[in-house]
Amino acid sequence: MTLVSDHIEPDTRERILVVAERLFRQIGYQKTTVADIAKELRMSPANVYRFFDSKKAIHEGVARTLMGQVEVAAMVIANRGGPAAPRLRELLGTIHSMNTERYVGDNKLHEMVAVAMEQSWEVCEAHMLLITETVGRVIGQGAASGEFAVSDLPVAAKCACTAMMRFFHPQMIAQCATKPGPTIDEMIDFVLAGLGSTGAAS
Amino acid sequence: MTLVSDHIEPDTRERILVVAERLFRQIGYQKTTVADIAKELRMSPANVYRFFDSKKAIHEGVARTLMGQVEVAAMVIANRGGPAAPRLRELLGTIHSMNTERYVGDNKLHEMVAVAMEQSWEVCEAHMLLITETVGRVIGQGAASGEFAVSDLPVAAKCACTAMMRFFHPQMIAQCATKPGPTIDEMIDFVLAGLGSTGAAS
Repeated sequence: MTLVSDHIEPDTRERILVVAERLFRQIGYQKTTVADIAKELRMSPANVYRFFDSKKAIHEGVARTLMGQVEVAAMVIANRGGPAAPRLRELLGTIHSMNTERYVGDNKLHEMVAVAMEQSWEVCEAHMLLITETVGRVIGQGAASGEFAVSDLPVAAKCACTAMMRFFHPQMIAQCATKPGPTIDEMIDFVLAGLGSTGAAS
Repeated sequence: MTLVSDHIEPDTRERILVVAERLFRQIGYQKTTVADIAKELRMSPANVYRFFDSKKAIHEGVARTLMGQVEVAAMVIANRGGPAAPRLRELLGTIHSMNTERYVGDNKLHEMVAVAMEQSWEVCEAHMLLITETVGRVIGQGAASGEFAVSDLPVAAKCACTAMMRFFHPQMIAQCATKPGPTIDEMIDFVLAGLGSTGAAS
């Protein structure tokens, strides 16, 4: 019984998150109820509550999944090795494109972002710290190889991520999409120059 | 009659904007009515409507005044002459501190910012273009004197202002005030390095 349960429960948990994410995208976070999620899965709301004790817990689970995918993609780039400048360019571009795909456009996940920032700030903060740390790892590799000239690595990582706010922050991506401003490539060039990149043209 | 009217009307217009700004700060933009503004000025709402045909027009007048003060302060610094790097530092710091004073904290002007961005975007955009141009002017002076190394001045100005988004954008100033991140001085150092500042330490 325990064995069977161990096999089934992570899968059910996963299925709840997949369906919840789809409903949040389609009809929005506020309008989606636990009953809607249960109905899609042909289970009772009580069964959903066995896995998540509130809609907020489901929301945090979906947010963690979406953020976790960006974190994994970022870490793959950071761990790959090779010259740091092109990898930093790829890393910053990937975070931008994944956040754009996730939170902007036709889908309604942007509602989820606003709720996460208000009600589950610690989840957002942990994600931002991990992304900053991963960006910092690549900057550190570039500093070690002589590609970058930085005197304070944690500060350089914080500044590089903060400089990218227009392209990283879901609300800013959405707000600035149709507004005048630099392209992402121009912005990454500027960040590379800020890191004293020997190959950067500002 | 015309002369007297010429003397009084700009003054009345000004007084309406001063009172409107105070009420927007104290009770918020949404809750302030044209009748409230008229009552404070001991005039009829009809008289207020002689100067501004809608609450939106008053709102735009207040926004233009607040933004105009920042623009004037920025231009004074840009026109002063002398080494560009310390003036750029002062300019970026001044925009940050004036926007913080205006739109963040106890007062309720942040509501006005949200309304301006939704309903009077062209007013916000004109302000941002003027600020970017003023920042670009100082960068251009630094490029001419050999303090900065920039190949494309308009792009450099756009990137410098975009990099400062956390410290310039009223909603970001408010959202990030208590969040981890670089200090404004660290961020300005990074921007100076991005401009190839000969004196910058990143």
